[in-house]
Amino acid sequence: MRENNKNCTIAVDVMGSDKGPSEFIRALIYLKDQNLLNSDLILLGQKKRIERLLSVREKFIPLERIQIIDADQVISMEEKPITALKKKKNSSMVKAIELLKNNEADAMVSCGNTGAMMAGGTLRLRPIEGIERPALAAIIPSKKSPFVFLDVGANPESSPIHLMHNAILGTHYAQARLGIKKPKVGLLTIGTEQGKGTPIVSKTHQYLQEINDQINYKGLIEGFQLFDGDVDVVVCDGFVGNILLKSSESLFAFIGETIKRELLRNIKRKIGAALSASAFKDMKSQLNPDERSGAPLLGINGNIIKSHGSSNAVAIASAIVAAQMVVECDMIDGIKSDILLANQKIEVNN
Amino acid sequence: MRENNKNCTIAVDVMGSDKGPSEFIRALIYLKDQNLLNSDLILLGQKKRIERLLSVREKFIPLERIQIIDADQVISMEEKPITALKKKKNSSMVKAIELLKNNEADAMVSCGNTGAMMAGGTLRLRPIEGIERPALAAIIPSKKSPFVFLDVGANPESSPIHLMHNAILGTHYAQARLGIKKPKVGLLTIGTEQGKGTPIVSKTHQYLQEINDQINYKGLIEGFQLFDGDVDVVVCDGFVGNILLKSSESLFAFIGETIKRELLRNIKRKIGAALSASAFKDMKSQLNPDERSGAPLLGINGNIIKSHGSSNAVAIASAIVAAQMVVECDMIDGIKSDILLANQKIEVNN
Repeated sequence: MRENNKNCTIAVDVMGSDKGPSEFIRALIYLKDQNLLNSDLILLGQKKRIERLLSVREKFIPLERIQIIDADQVISMEEKPITALKKKKNSSMVKAIELLKNNEADAMVSCGNTGAMMAGGTLRLRPIEGIERPALAAIIPSKKSPFVFLDVGANPESSPIHLMHNAILGTHYAQARLGIKKPKVGLLTIGTEQGKGTPIVSKTHQYLQEINDQINYKGLIEGFQLFDGDVDVVVCDGFVGNILLKSSESLFAFIGETIKRELLRNIKRKIGAALSASAFKDMKSQLNPDERSGAPLLGINGNIIKSHGSSNAVAIASAIVAAQMVVECDMIDGIKSDILLANQKIEVNN
Repeated sequence: MRENNKNCTIAVDVMGSDKGPSEFIRALIYLKDQNLLNSDLILLGQKKRIERLLSVREKFIPLERIQIIDADQVISMEEKPITALKKKKNSSMVKAIELLKNNEADAMVSCGNTGAMMAGGTLRLRPIEGIERPALAAIIPSKKSPFVFLDVGANPESSPIHLMHNAILGTHYAQARLGIKKPKVGLLTIGTEQGKGTPIVSKTHQYLQEINDQINYKGLIEGFQLFDGDVDVVVCDGFVGNILLKSSESLFAFIGETIKRELLRNIKRKIGAALSASAFKDMKSQLNPDERSGAPLLGINGNIIKSHGSSNAVAIASAIVAAQMVVECDMIDGIKSDILLANQKIEVNN
């Protein structure tokens, strides 16, 4: 457990990103420049390569806060999680997880193989007492303010208890990351009338009502309400969440391409597009922001933040900031006590 | 059964739309104007009101093809399906379903209460032999050509057999509506590697491979591929499909609002937006077209086409055209033989 007056330490797996370790170095420069770094960092990866990258830009990097641990293996995106974890004990990801396990770091950030990260995190750090399966959470923009969306792929077959746990996990993450005191929680379904949806949704709805003194449950929401921003946490299973997240990104790209093609169709439109170009840039950064990158694997005994494989420096920096936030909030301690309490209530009532 | 040299007859429930019966009259004018009508129509609703609406515009309407059946009750969007069906025997929707049941119409079109339409269609017309649950299909735009997406909400808890049936239903609908001879079929999941997804998806994947001489199965697809247009039919359960369809519409609207707000932020952008305004109009009609409106309830002994409650004249006309297409293709006969064959194969193999 972290001592209270000490800075927190974040382990950063600098391998396994599509853009290579240099993007992490740019992230460090960005963090220093924006005055966002308030933790010590342990960089894990090929030591000589990292040292060379650091030395070139040493003036712009908070070297005094950085330690390097050599890890010469890399788990690629294509590798099978369990096999990779067993074979590559000396990989940056496995070593970062070990740092968490041994309390030598308070959180870790990685852009690597998601499956390996989930399997490694779950097997080595174990789920929090009372939780069976962890959940992966994302921050999604909406018409109002951003919201926490989970599970986006860790647990494709969720029981009502799992979904209830997701509501608690999402609540704590919204508190830590979005700074919302009593995050409003919605449960995603089809048709909000009594009796619609599935038995799993109905049972979860009942459970969430039963723990409504612990979370701020606002009831069922439908797909058409997803981007309204009326709730701060949207709960679903990992199958729906993953498909929804990925297809939304794909739809966003598709709409963007269609607009672009239409804008280039004739000279009048081209001139118009040139004059309004900054509007599209602003829209893109509002809807698909690197500043909200970083998805935590919630529900295990350790703070693991996943950033997507193609993260740029700003996205990586954002994931490091997210790691700092969950550590500073003692998020895991809060989750632990809430899960035990909720499980007791459900056991007594059902 | 329809005689081959006779025009087909479409029953049109002109009540139950948000815009009222007059929008249907505009749809008739549009159909005549665009030379799209090749069926006789039975309009169901408040007879006097329809007659008045028709008489005002009689020059522009193919009156010789129109018959009116009086139905003075309306099932509203808020009513509980089963209760509404029992209570309102004289509603336009119930009467339209009866016309199908009695072979007095070959297809019906309605903008009314979806739940009542699904329940009424299923209870009165019964599922096709070998099918347990019907599916609702939508046409979705993509980077290439539009594709059939099902189930978008009829059956939220689908077994592998139900999903296999959806693949067959979607194939026949893609043939009838999109004119594709051998529609490519994809099964929506998370992670296309062996062993990912859910047991239901894995089993369905196996079944679809086993009936690959009947359908053109291309394998699993992920959320990020949804709008790529590499397959013509995307299969999922009604829970995922409904949430995905509704959230995509919601995301589309959200992106549109954000662009609009950004474009109006300063004078330079406003001028740009004015010059390129036609591009946005074209984009909107490409991505959210009324021309592809109309979702059939597939898998029952009758052609029921649902158009959304806020359908305009073009959307209603499109649903009527869709009805004509499925009748002309004898879609139900094709589905019947394919389902029996597929069920036999699965029974023998498993």
